[in-house]
Amino acid sequence: MRIKSIILSLFILFLVNSASFAQATDGSQLWFTNQQLSPKVKTAIPTTVCIQEESATFKIIKEELAKSFPALGVGDVSFTKKSTKNIVLIGTADSKAIASMVSEDEFAKLGDDGFLIRRKQGDGTILIAANTEFGALYGVYEFLRLLKTSATDLVEIDRVEIPSYQRRILNHWDNLDGTVERGYAGYSIWKWDELPGTISPRYEAYARANASIGINGTVLNNVNANPDILTKDYLEKVKVLAGIFRPYGIRVYLSVNFSSPKELGGLENSDPLNDQVKSWWNDKADEIYAMIPDFGGFLVKANSEGLPGPQDYGRTHADGANMLADALAPHGGIVMWRAFVYNPDGDDRAKQAYKEFVPLDGQFRKNVIIQLKNGPIDFQPREPFSPMFGAMKHTTLMPEFQITQEYLGFSDHLVFLSTLFEECLDTDTYAEGPNTTIARITDGEVYNDSITAIAGVANIGEDTNWCGHHFAQSNWYAFGRLAWNNKLSSAEIANEWLEQTFTQDADFVAQMKRVMLQSREAVVNYMTPIGLHHLMGWSHHYGPEPWCEVPGARPDWLPTYYHKADSMGIGFDRSTTGSEAVLQYAEPLRSIYDNVSTCPEMYLLWFHHLSWDYVLHNGNTLWDELCYKYSSGVDRVKVFQKIWDRMEGKVDAQRFKEVQAKLAIQATEAIWWRDACLLYFQTFSGKPIPEELDRPVHVLEKLKMLKFDMTHHN
Amino acid sequence: MRIKSIILSLFILFLVNSASFAQATDGSQLWFTNQQLSPKVKTAIPTTVCIQEESATFKIIKEELAKSFPALGVGDVSFTKKSTKNIVLIGTADSKAIASMVSEDEFAKLGDDGFLIRRKQGDGTILIAANTEFGALYGVYEFLRLLKTSATDLVEIDRVEIPSYQRRILNHWDNLDGTVERGYAGYSIWKWDELPGTISPRYEAYARANASIGINGTVLNNVNANPDILTKDYLEKVKVLAGIFRPYGIRVYLSVNFSSPKELGGLENSDPLNDQVKSWWNDKADEIYAMIPDFGGFLVKANSEGLPGPQDYGRTHADGANMLADALAPHGGIVMWRAFVYNPDGDDRAKQAYKEFVPLDGQFRKNVIIQLKNGPIDFQPREPFSPMFGAMKHTTLMPEFQITQEYLGFSDHLVFLSTLFEECLDTDTYAEGPNTTIARITDGEVYNDSITAIAGVANIGEDTNWCGHHFAQSNWYAFGRLAWNNKLSSAEIANEWLEQTFTQDADFVAQMKRVMLQSREAVVNYMTPIGLHHLMGWSHHYGPEPWCEVPGARPDWLPTYYHKADSMGIGFDRSTTGSEAVLQYAEPLRSIYDNVSTCPEMYLLWFHHLSWDYVLHNGNTLWDELCYKYSSGVDRVKVFQKIWDRMEGKVDAQRFKEVQAKLAIQATEAIWWRDACLLYFQTFSGKPIPEELDRPVHVLEKLKMLKFDMTHHN
Repeated sequence: MRIKSIILSLFILFLVNSASFAQATDGSQLWFTNQQLSPKVKTAIPTTVCIQEESATFKIIKEELAKSFPALGVGDVSFTKKSTKNIVLIGTADSKAIASMVSEDEFAKLGDDGFLIRRKQGDGTILIAANTEFGALYGVYEFLRLLKTSATDLVEIDRVEIPSYQRRILNHWDNLDGTVERGYAGYSIWKWDELPGTISPRYEAYARANASIGINGTVLNNVNANPDILTKDYLEKVKVLAGIFRPYGIRVYLSVNFSSPKELGGLENSDPLNDQVKSWWNDKADEIYAMIPDFGGFLVKANSEGLPGPQDYGRTHADGANMLADALAPHGGIVMWRAFVYNPDGDDRAKQAYKEFVPLDGQFRKNVIIQLKNGPIDFQPREPFSPMFGAMKHTTLMPEFQITQEYLGFSDHLVFLSTLFEECLDTDTYAEGPNTTIARITDGEVYNDSITAIAGVANIGEDTNWCGHHFAQSNWYAFGRLAWNNKLSSAEIANEWLEQTFTQDADFVAQMKRVMLQSREAVVNYMTPIGLHHLMGWSHHYGPEPWCEVPGARPDWLPTYYHKADSMGIGFDRSTTGSEAVLQYAEPLRSIYDNVSTCPEMYLLWFHHLSWDYVLHNGNTLWDELCYKYSSGVDRVKVFQKIWDRMEGKVDAQRFKEVQAKLAIQATEAIWWRDACLLYFQTFSGKPIPEELDRPVHVLEKLKMLKFDMTHHN
Repeated sequence: MRIKSIILSLFILFLVNSASFAQATDGSQLWFTNQQLSPKVKTAIPTTVCIQEESATFKIIKEELAKSFPALGVGDVSFTKKSTKNIVLIGTADSKAIASMVSEDEFAKLGDDGFLIRRKQGDGTILIAANTEFGALYGVYEFLRLLKTSATDLVEIDRVEIPSYQRRILNHWDNLDGTVERGYAGYSIWKWDELPGTISPRYEAYARANASIGINGTVLNNVNANPDILTKDYLEKVKVLAGIFRPYGIRVYLSVNFSSPKELGGLENSDPLNDQVKSWWNDKADEIYAMIPDFGGFLVKANSEGLPGPQDYGRTHADGANMLADALAPHGGIVMWRAFVYNPDGDDRAKQAYKEFVPLDGQFRKNVIIQLKNGPIDFQPREPFSPMFGAMKHTTLMPEFQITQEYLGFSDHLVFLSTLFEECLDTDTYAEGPNTTIARITDGEVYNDSITAIAGVANIGEDTNWCGHHFAQSNWYAFGRLAWNNKLSSAEIANEWLEQTFTQDADFVAQMKRVMLQSREAVVNYMTPIGLHHLMGWSHHYGPEPWCEVPGARPDWLPTYYHKADSMGIGFDRSTTGSEAVLQYAEPLRSIYDNVSTCPEMYLLWFHHLSWDYVLHNGNTLWDELCYKYSSGVDRVKVFQKIWDRMEGKVDAQRFKEVQAKLAIQATEAIWWRDACLLYFQTFSGKPIPEELDRPVHVLEKLKMLKFDMTHHN
């Protein structure tokens, strides 16, 4: 790339005092909404920006700076250090000016996507340096974030950022017909019918949003994959999207159907040991890479919930994954193979993925990565971690989080999922002794993996505000930020998101940060406290149906399989007296979970079936504690409503009213959940709700009669 | 003892339907107050009681039955099995009738104090058999308990009970001047001035109450021991008490002052390696045992809080304890040597006892037992366990609990301590891998100790209701029951205590059991939540004084030593970045406590100094969580008040009013604690109390001016 210098003269002082210009009130601007500079940056305010190189990505960098500081003229001017103070200098080692200020050792540490931001104390020059243009782009987004948030004082800045994961990927469960499985923000943003000819402006806005938080990969289509995605026609469409995303550092990946050779290629079967099948995949990989040279790879859901896979031919997951991996390896692609497998005839569902996959440890190719949901069941409001983390020591693992709120109130409930992601990442598996956290297992620290990755199932749709709920944007944001730095705290993330999305008003940020940080525990409490799980409605997963019975249904799709309530008590005995799922955890967790008196109370009914009269550490009986927890979930949502009402005037009227309306739905549904679960479980416990708690306002028999038609809830 | 038979013809059917006769309303009757029989026992109602032997203890058995069933005539009649059905047969292997019904193997299992209760399905004979008269006495108290409580159906009974601990001991911190250190129920029940001539009827009532719950030892005097207790005059008084207690199976022990040879014997010193000193103790032991042949032994607080001890002469705790042990050994006596030692100039107080004692492991005589407080500091509302449990593998250890509420609201607060005792006993130390609970370490299961013991610091005084608060009786009761069976649950204990003490009314028992079980968590929350400790007032330990400063005071007697609040945060860093107290725990606890994200939140500020903004698993910041916890403690007490008010008419008016008045004090003081701690800590955090919580009603500066003169609070 040609070395060139661009100086943007930034009259930022002017901007600090001006009203923020991008104050859109519909949520369409995501975390770019509030462009107000933080008062903290004043003493380090830059006056000139020198961009040292030229490329599509550097053009984006230039445009970002222009967007943030529209009052500036933008010109291509040779860089001269003497011209002014508080210069911002952006570039790679290709630029002499940069190379003179950063040592080779420092560059070596930065890797592909890392960057450094440093302010020289003399003339106040701020340096943003990276090995690649993408590193520079991430550095610029970080710089802009620092200008607009209050956490860091730019005056003293001297920071190196290196992402925790190499591949930071969104998974879209978007179908080719435009629907989104478990999507609650409207239809898909991918307009397959219009592509490749018509380009929605959303595509670039999407890329920009992702790049700004460090996301560098996207799986465009649903893991329940339609084979058609690999047809020439669809690949042409994918190619266009890949081209839009490329300068933002975002690679495209595709979910593939394991039967594609048969379905699409007309082969007799899709047996991974069949040479024709191998050839078909090799050819398909060549075809894809010819069109999309930086194509990321495949995501595969195989032999899971009825989808085809290698076991259809008596082959293993390793046989299937390795065959695809061999086809992609020459091009540098990877296979993300999902471990979300379970069988209705099998053992305790929580044990099955481990039983199927752990024996295959060590048999996977280096460019295969096993994609694991955080918990052993399925994205419940709270689960203990999947015991496969730490158990597959010779296999690369990546966490899969669900950003879309399939089990957490759809896009109607304000639930900040960062605390859920953080809880999982920080969990110590003890697989290699203390401090073998899931973060350290998956980011390569523990097992030195050559590939590292993390995935989040997107909550994005064509709704104006992208995610259906203004606060649901924070979950997309938080996923990206944690994928970039898995040591960030949810409090930091909430803080910076609120300031960029709404306002830097200290009271607003303090209050709403509190709401966000408490929100996940609230939903746990009003839906599935104390380790309960899978109490939701059949199929659509909307609302409470702990009583759910569907004639002929798979038992492991029914709540009674999980809560096992009876007149004696409630909970799933996964201890050594029950399904023995605890044995899949390393010591000391195995013993801790196995023993009812040491099992963390948040997992109590996950691992134990306990009497209604069982007394917890706080002195409450299990029944009373259930009542308190459900009630506290409801009460907390009511507090959220009051706090939000007090925020009127601190945010624009449109978002104020829209969030207010969603909170009313959430409060109503929290009460619905509380009443449904307590009234239903009370038919077993026979015990009264403690008199100091609110009484139910619903009647159980009426709740049982509610039916919803939500096959394609969008 | 001469074999004899006594038949009590019991027209119990009559009694079932009569009003309970012993319904005293002043609390003086303790758990003997409600003599109503449980409806459950009807089908197994005995008609005749045959007591097979004669002795002072069997006389008590006879009297107990007569007290419970006063309508009966009591006569000495030869036992004839044919005479009637549903006979109750009580005795030892000395009785032929008993010996014919219980095998030698069964007797062998029962040990000294164990018993069996069995109902034969044919003629309904109920057998209460033991190896000793004391075992028979315990069996009879159990039988009477079963008759008067609802938990067990006598029809099917076939139960063997063997106590968890051989020595189940109350420690009285009663001074010879009649005051009681940390006593909140009036002056001492021991009337030393009147003894040995005048015998208070309280002495036998005390023995009866203890025997009924299995307590078999009492240390009559304060561990801060006056040497005079070993004078001839005082031993004469002690002898009289021992004589009263003897038929109830209760041995007397004494606290001794280590300087007694010097103070009392006029020796030059009390050096344990001085032969004159040894002789003095040997002679003293001979003197005591000549007067009291079943004397239990000595309790010693040495080199602790200014008291003399072997270290005064450059000797170790082992030197001191062994010298006393050698004096007692020929008579079968034991030494209980307290490990409550700490030094103001030393390391973190929580570490000191461990550092002083663990190196001496294996050096103590077999008849020495180290008496350990449950936590490493001092009977706080909640502490993690003392790490000495499990660390001294070659030394016999006994837990010391505090029944009197020095740090838990004196006798003004309703706090059921059973949950505290249970929490400690059930704690897994992992000293020998999983399931090395403190219960199993101290009851001999883990290390096969030849002596086992447990101690509780009594809450007994001359108040009519014995303990100052009617519900404080339950703590004495619970200690005894857990000392007998350390696997009993607090819920079972609360249930049987309520039924015997108040009424079997199911609503009353259910509601008040709930209150009792929640009460300890309530006090933790309004006094010292989240691992805080030692925030109470100077010296008297009454009320909150987290700000306490006393010129020239030992720093380790000041709250600031423990909470370490500053503008950055709060808590005592005992992790590996701080005092390293965590290293005294076995793995995995060491790592679990060390890591802030795995440390149980109830111990968080015990082990960590954390920022006010630190976010807990539930999403609350530390500051907000503190506010919630303090508030929830207060709220819970308000609920207790409402529940108790609803109990009016279900209990006698006197106890109803007295408890009601105490609850009002507790609510007032809970608010005082909340306000004092939150307002004080707020001066550091600078953060607002969450708006949904009640505001403080006190002003910090006024709270700081409160002073109390309570040197001898009785």
